[in-house]
Amino acid sequence: MGAGSWGTAFALVLADAGHDVRLWARRPELAEAVRRTRRNPDYLPDIALPPGIRATADPADALDGAEVVVLAVPSQRLRETLRDWRLPEGCLVVSLAKGIEVGTDLRMSQVVAEVTGIDPDRIGIVTGPNLAREIAERQPAAAVVAASRGDVARRLQAVCHSPTFRPYTNTDVLGCELAGATKNVIALAVGMGTGLGYGANAVASVITRGLAETARLGEALGADPHTFAGLAGLGDLVATCSSPLSRNRTFGEHLGRGLDVAEATARSLGVAEGVQSAESVADLGRRTGVDLPIVEGVRRVVRGETTPPEAIRDLLARDPKPERA
Amino acid sequence: MGAGSWGTAFALVLADAGHDVRLWARRPELAEAVRRTRRNPDYLPDIALPPGIRATADPADALDGAEVVVLAVPSQRLRETLRDWRLPEGCLVVSLAKGIEVGTDLRMSQVVAEVTGIDPDRIGIVTGPNLAREIAERQPAAAVVAASRGDVARRLQAVCHSPTFRPYTNTDVLGCELAGATKNVIALAVGMGTGLGYGANAVASVITRGLAETARLGEALGADPHTFAGLAGLGDLVATCSSPLSRNRTFGEHLGRGLDVAEATARSLGVAEGVQSAESVADLGRRTGVDLPIVEGVRRVVRGETTPPEAIRDLLARDPKPERA
Repeated sequence: MGAGSWGTAFALVLADAGHDVRLWARRPELAEAVRRTRRNPDYLPDIALPPGIRATADPADALDGAEVVVLAVPSQRLRETLRDWRLPEGCLVVSLAKGIEVGTDLRMSQVVAEVTGIDPDRIGIVTGPNLAREIAERQPAAAVVAASRGDVARRLQAVCHSPTFRPYTNTDVLGCELAGATKNVIALAVGMGTGLGYGANAVASVITRGLAETARLGEALGADPHTFAGLAGLGDLVATCSSPLSRNRTFGEHLGRGLDVAEATARSLGVAEGVQSAESVADLGRRTGVDLPIVEGVRRVVRGETTPPEAIRDLLARDPKPERA
Repeated sequence: MGAGSWGTAFALVLADAGHDVRLWARRPELAEAVRRTRRNPDYLPDIALPPGIRATADPADALDGAEVVVLAVPSQRLRETLRDWRLPEGCLVVSLAKGIEVGTDLRMSQVVAEVTGIDPDRIGIVTGPNLAREIAERQPAAAVVAASRGDVARRLQAVCHSPTFRPYTNTDVLGCELAGATKNVIALAVGMGTGLGYGANAVASVITRGLAETARLGEALGADPHTFAGLAGLGDLVATCSSPLSRNRTFGEHLGRGLDVAEATARSLGVAEGVQSAESVADLGRRTGVDLPIVEGVRRVVRGETTPPEAIRDLLARDPKPERA
């Protein structure tokens, strides 16, 4: 449900894994173009879609009798979109969106459960180092399929295991979703360092220490800290920070070069997701009493309370510490 | 002790931290050039060295009365070099070299203890995402100071904490050294993926799953698995894989493009360290019964028993698994 680049690429994975896939596009003209050209002209124009995919703009048609419903709508629009749909009895639901809902601080799987009333045990997520274009090109990729019940996770794993897409199961849904949301904040910090002219050491240090503080936060909230060292945490973060296409990293680079948020937003066709997440993640840190120096530094830069060079200086001037407290 | 690029850059960190540093160079003409020009013309010609550094080619002069002796000689030459020296009574020793000694499978701190007879508690290491050139340019960097005793680690941490170099302590010497040695094998695998034309997802997946298997090996050998998610593991690996200067990654790229080891060696002015480590790490995996699919794939490619595309295909075709076994 959703024919953006990731929704389309994941439909291709499911078709490659041998399933009949209905791809719902919000705009009828996009669904029509996919039917006619066997491509998605707006997001992946050069990728030929396999025959197993049928596009439609009618949600009832897309959902009718589906065993697995995959949600690939933007995180902040998930609630309103879901309200209009009627999910089939007994289906499993998979969320692909990353983010925390603004206003409620809910994760995507929680939004799904709240709106649809579906048993949370039947709601899974797919996450990891999954840049849509590379998946659509059938480059080899690993991913995480998370669901609170191991048998549900394994069933979803079997559903999306294609010759080039290798999913691993995980039952820590909270940790996987939190890692996906905080990733964008750390990517902003990495971008700031790059924008300041720093090289590989600084990038690697920010990634490593950023993951360490995210894992501490996750642990305080009840997640498994190992999740953050895995594909949903480290993997997704490294892919984002290695790709020249990442909006959050590029946005951070603008800030590092001295632009403020308004100027960076103007250059980026919209504000980066990590700007909003910096506030909510910093808030979670304060509520749980977990020290998040990198997230806090990003939040203060974004608010204009400090500059990137000062934020780096503050990080280096902190008391010497053991690597794990 | 050692005036290569990392030895020189670390001398600069120690001088920045306020210490009198003697920098030993093997070749008298290099020591003389450093004294005369206040630069290291062979390794960091454009970096002005601070006044706290005095260069000498006489090991007895360099070692006389030293409280901390820092060893920055290549890993395979450490044993023969150490044999000729007389370390001051009661000094602490820090090893900067990464690698496993060929023939003995000993880590560097073990070689130091064996040759000098110094109490292993007094031997530490410094590791992490530390590309020498960036450190010498005083870009901000984080590092790990590991020693089996916390008080020794904290003393060494204080010694090398400069305004731009932020060391964290860790008491898992085994894990930190193993992570440094296996890093080069994983960097070869990352390079192979890049050489095959794969993008950020594949790089991130190989880094993440490579660290996961390294952590399993470390745990079986008695290391703390968290070490591998920290600066000595993840941090060093990400820095190596992000830098265009990494010899192991570049060597892997040659293999990925279809060259064999002899051809890649000819292009690289010498064989990459990870080629030797692939054998010894795979051997450790067999001895401990730990499954190391990425290391094993690298070892088989290096030996010419398989090709990079076949090795990737084998990795993807393995039975579906949970992320953590």
